[in-house]
Amino acid sequence: MDASVFSYVVDTLFALFAMTLIILMVPGFAMLEAGLVRTKNVTTVLMVNTMIYSVASFCFLLVGYLVAFGSWDHNTDMSKWAVFLFQMAFVGKVVNIMSGGVSERTAIIPLTIFTIIMSALIYPFIVNITWGAGTLFHLNMYDLAGSTVIHSTGGWALLAAILIIGPRKGRFVDGKIKVIPASNIPLVVLGAFLLWIGWFGFNGGSVGAISSKENADAVALTVMNTNTAGLAGAIIVMILVYLKYKKFDITMILNGALGGLVAITAGADKFGIYTPIIIGAIGGVLVFYAVPFFDKLKIDDPVGALSVHLVNGIWGTLAVGIFASDVSLFDQIVGIVVVGIIAFVSSYAVIFAINKFMKFRVDDDTQTEGLDVELCGIESYPEFKRAI
Amino acid sequence: MDASVFSYVVDTLFALFAMTLIILMVPGFAMLEAGLVRTKNVTTVLMVNTMIYSVASFCFLLVGYLVAFGSWDHNTDMSKWAVFLFQMAFVGKVVNIMSGGVSERTAIIPLTIFTIIMSALIYPFIVNITWGAGTLFHLNMYDLAGSTVIHSTGGWALLAAILIIGPRKGRFVDGKIKVIPASNIPLVVLGAFLLWIGWFGFNGGSVGAISSKENADAVALTVMNTNTAGLAGAIIVMILVYLKYKKFDITMILNGALGGLVAITAGADKFGIYTPIIIGAIGGVLVFYAVPFFDKLKIDDPVGALSVHLVNGIWGTLAVGIFASDVSLFDQIVGIVVVGIIAFVSSYAVIFAINKFMKFRVDDDTQTEGLDVELCGIESYPEFKRAI
Amino acid sequence: MDASVFSYVVDTLFALFAMTLIILMVPGFAMLEAGLVRTKNVTTVLMVNTMIYSVASFCFLLVGYLVAFGSWDHNTDMSKWAVFLFQMAFVGKVVNIMSGGVSERTAIIPLTIFTIIMSALIYPFIVNITWGAGTLFHLNMYDLAGSTVIHSTGGWALLAAILIIGPRKGRFVDGKIKVIPASNIPLVVLGAFLLWIGWFGFNGGSVGAISSKENADAVALTVMNTNTAGLAGAIIVMILVYLKYKKFDITMILNGALGGLVAITAGADKFGIYTPIIIGAIGGVLVFYAVPFFDKLKIDDPVGALSVHLVNGIWGTLAVGIFASDVSLFDQIVGIVVVGIIAFVSSYAVIFAINKFMKFRVDDDTQTEGLDVELCGIESYPEFKRAI
Repeated sequence: MDASVFSYVVDTLFALFAMTLIILMVPGFAMLEAGLVRTKNVTTVLMVNTMIYSVASFCFLLVGYLVAFGSWDHNTDMSKWAVFLFQMAFVGKVVNIMSGGVSERTAIIPLTIFTIIMSALIYPFIVNITWGAGTLFHLNMYDLAGSTVIHSTGGWALLAAILIIGPRKGRFVDGKIKVIPASNIPLVVLGAFLLWIGWFGFNGGSVGAISSKENADAVALTVMNTNTAGLAGAIIVMILVYLKYKKFDITMILNGALGGLVAITAGADKFGIYTPIIIGAIGGVLVFYAVPFFDKLKIDDPVGALSVHLVNGIWGTLAVGIFASDVSLFDQIVGIVVVGIIAFVSSYAVIFAINKFMKFRVDDDTQTEGLDVELCGIESYPEFKRAI
Repeated sequence: MDASVFSYVVDTLFALFAMTLIILMVPGFAMLEAGLVRTKNVTTVLMVNTMIYSVASFCFLLVGYLVAFGSWDHNTDMSKWAVFLFQMAFVGKVVNIMSGGVSERTAIIPLTIFTIIMSALIYPFIVNITWGAGTLFHLNMYDLAGSTVIHSTGGWALLAAILIIGPRKGRFVDGKIKVIPASNIPLVVLGAFLLWIGWFGFNGGSVGAISSKENADAVALTVMNTNTAGLAGAIIVMILVYLKYKKFDITMILNGALGGLVAITAGADKFGIYTPIIIGAIGGVLVFYAVPFFDKLKIDDPVGALSVHLVNGIWGTLAVGIFASDVSLFDQIVGIVVVGIIAFVSSYAVIFAINKFMKFRVDDDTQTEGLDVELCGIESYPEFKRAI
Repeated sequence: MDASVFSYVVDTLFALFAMTLIILMVPGFAMLEAGLVRTKNVTTVLMVNTMIYSVASFCFLLVGYLVAFGSWDHNTDMSKWAVFLFQMAFVGKVVNIMSGGVSERTAIIPLTIFTIIMSALIYPFIVNITWGAGTLFHLNMYDLAGSTVIHSTGGWALLAAILIIGPRKGRFVDGKIKVIPASNIPLVVLGAFLLWIGWFGFNGGSVGAISSKENADAVALTVMNTNTAGLAGAIIVMILVYLKYKKFDITMILNGALGGLVAITAGADKFGIYTPIIIGAIGGVLVFYAVPFFDKLKIDDPVGALSVHLVNGIWGTLAVGIFASDVSLFDQIVGIVVVGIIAFVSSYAVIFAINKFMKFRVDDDTQTEGLDVELCGIESYPEFKRAI
């Protein structure tokens, strides 16, 4: 029995397993967002999620993967097709983060064009300078599974998009913030748990191999720490929302869990089993305070994506520099800043340019009527009588 | 370390992983169909899906597996129980394809009797002459994971059923086609993505082993090609529906993805990474044109199963003959025709015979009221006021 | 290639795979219960499920695991973190079983306190004397994956809770039983199948290793038998409900499947491939008769958890003693009784004590209005007009 066959086969199987879990995040994001938006915009949100998986994965296959890694045959010790699949599973997530936060007011076609550019060029370039070929330069930031590379990148793109597209009609009126309730809580919960489970593949798979005792331990520890941070994020927000409102606001609690999961993503393999409690709990606290903070700034983000992904993407990347003895906090900060500038500036420029000849924002009437009939021709639940 | 232990263990684990993904297609089909039919028939559709998984798997355990493979101990290099489970995971799919297309007008008991015969005899016989023992003869058709064996078989059975059962009441009135909208789009999307993910196990697992470098590459390439064809099917239909209707019809787009997935099923391991783009895109185009074509023929198929499974089952099987240098197009055509005749004639005969003493079609009043109350005694969403 | 590396790596991967499937049961339970309760209580049920996963897993990490197994470094031949994750995936299930059965009338905070005690102390102590360190004593009962340890324990806790909390307002009026219909059947079906699939990891993973031919066979056989018992439970109840009511009551049929799955959990690795048909079918029959039996006793269990988990937990544990030649029926009975006494008495005492200073039962007005607005501040489907 040849040891190289063993590691090649087992690491390929492991990558396929991890990839499958990550792709469970596609229905995960779709259900989470479909549950959070209003009934009249649900089909559009689902269409956007379907478009993103299809278009982003396809562009990554044709162009993005080569931009990131230079060739199909870069150095790997498992099937190169499994390496591709694992990397491809990530790309849609970046656009998902962005698209969720501009839900209920954004047109599909300009978003599709942005998806093409993000998945073929912007995100692959960021991978190139972090995990990839390092064609121009290579950042020293430690970012296991993408607190910065995935989550902050998506978050910066979202911030750029919100600044250009603006808030939903009726969200901020006469200086007041109108709360728009989620339309379907079971879908929110289903989506959040599919994301949570997908994260095991996201972070665990990012260890890159499982075929030695050391790697097997690293993968299992990574999954364990990932989960722990999610638990801590959920629990701390459960306490905070109860103390403040005397109600268990489940959407905030689940965003707390997701915040913890984003925060642990940069360094899940670097800590003992108790540190993720701190990192995840701080992640939850950040979500709890960031959501109303963005509201006050009149930055309208229907799903809380900035708080979950951008704020915690930054926090998680910093946390590795703070808690891991072999990682330089300075390198982490450089990485956060460089990726942040590239992601924000390029996204802003691309969205601004697209917006010049094809408006991202749908008009007020369509927003009032709901995007579904106008953009998709299909209502999400046509048979149910509406109360609002 | 004995190499035979390695391959036995890893291939067993791989088969169990693939089987699990395929069984995710059970809720996948259930949610897809529950979302596509009207509220008043949702419980019945879900009951039929539950019945199919239970009854078909059980009959395959008792009878069908032995019909297909001759014995429990046919030649395999992994646990025979894992081989069974992997094969068992397929059988319900054939009936699922058929039952979906006759939704909203079909009684449960005759469908159950048909399920027994299909899963104990008809499908196992088709497996016997293609992947199995070849007791009478063996077709030379190359069909990796069942474009013909699974999808066309289910599609031919569906065509037979539709010819006998007829269209839903009110579907074709005075020569006009009445469009009946899907009742729950989130369920449609959830179901479609569970199917998509299940397909990785369906096709990847059909490679049969992962325990050598060659096999690991073949499995990963198969999963990659499967996914690529789904992407291409979704994207091409997204373009086509927009060009024609200026709306993104998400149910058609998802059927395009599924059409691409069916089309690649026969030969996902036979192509380089770009050919699946062509095969999947053609699969999507076929769905786009086949759905209105069947409508014009007054063949009423509420979920588009004929277009997705029958048309693309045939196309996918032909495509291997066209694009793979080592596969004979003639053998593919012979396989398509022989399996088609067996599946259609036997299904027609069985449904016709059952229908003689127990009507498949529920009466018009029950169709108007909805099948749920009459057949299941349970409404799908009893608390929601209905608009239609 | 070192055999110990092989088994360490492959068993770690296997445990992570099994753990992932079990954690799919978290959305599984959540969707099942969200579908079974009334719209006005759906958010609360989902909040409770989210709380349980978070709090129970966290307490097991901090305290429970050490209570059960004595140390982080007890004897294992795979990554200790994977062992922890696999065990952690179980703990929430025990409380899930209990919480489901007291839905629609139970406050979140006292339930959270009970969750802490159950997952940190009661359940870990029961694991200690069955699968674990055996600090005080060790039962000889054979219980592969927890018919008694998980399902009966949860069931006894539920019985204790129901006796203290009482039935839902309006459930038993003037000696009559009011049937309260499930609000969302697709969620019930989705949840049930996620549970079913999770069970493959639950039982298969409990074999503990897959890295020899014998173990690979044992795992595959266990998964196969698990599935077979579920099939038999579904089919027998399908027949029974049709014979009695002439309707296919899908919620009862799915509970039949779950009953079969609980029943096979104690000994799925101990039987040939046909015995699980008997065990699962009896499991289904027990559910069919136990549900109205508990109704008659005015024990109000909205999801049928006592019938599924307690009755079949006992039956499944007995069944190993009856059908497996190397297991003592006497030991099984001793195990059932000892665990039953510990689980019931300790749960009763804890719930009784908590209830003294913080009522488990929410007041009648809140029950009439629905728990969601009062406890969570969020309606599950705020936009749909309600018919009831």
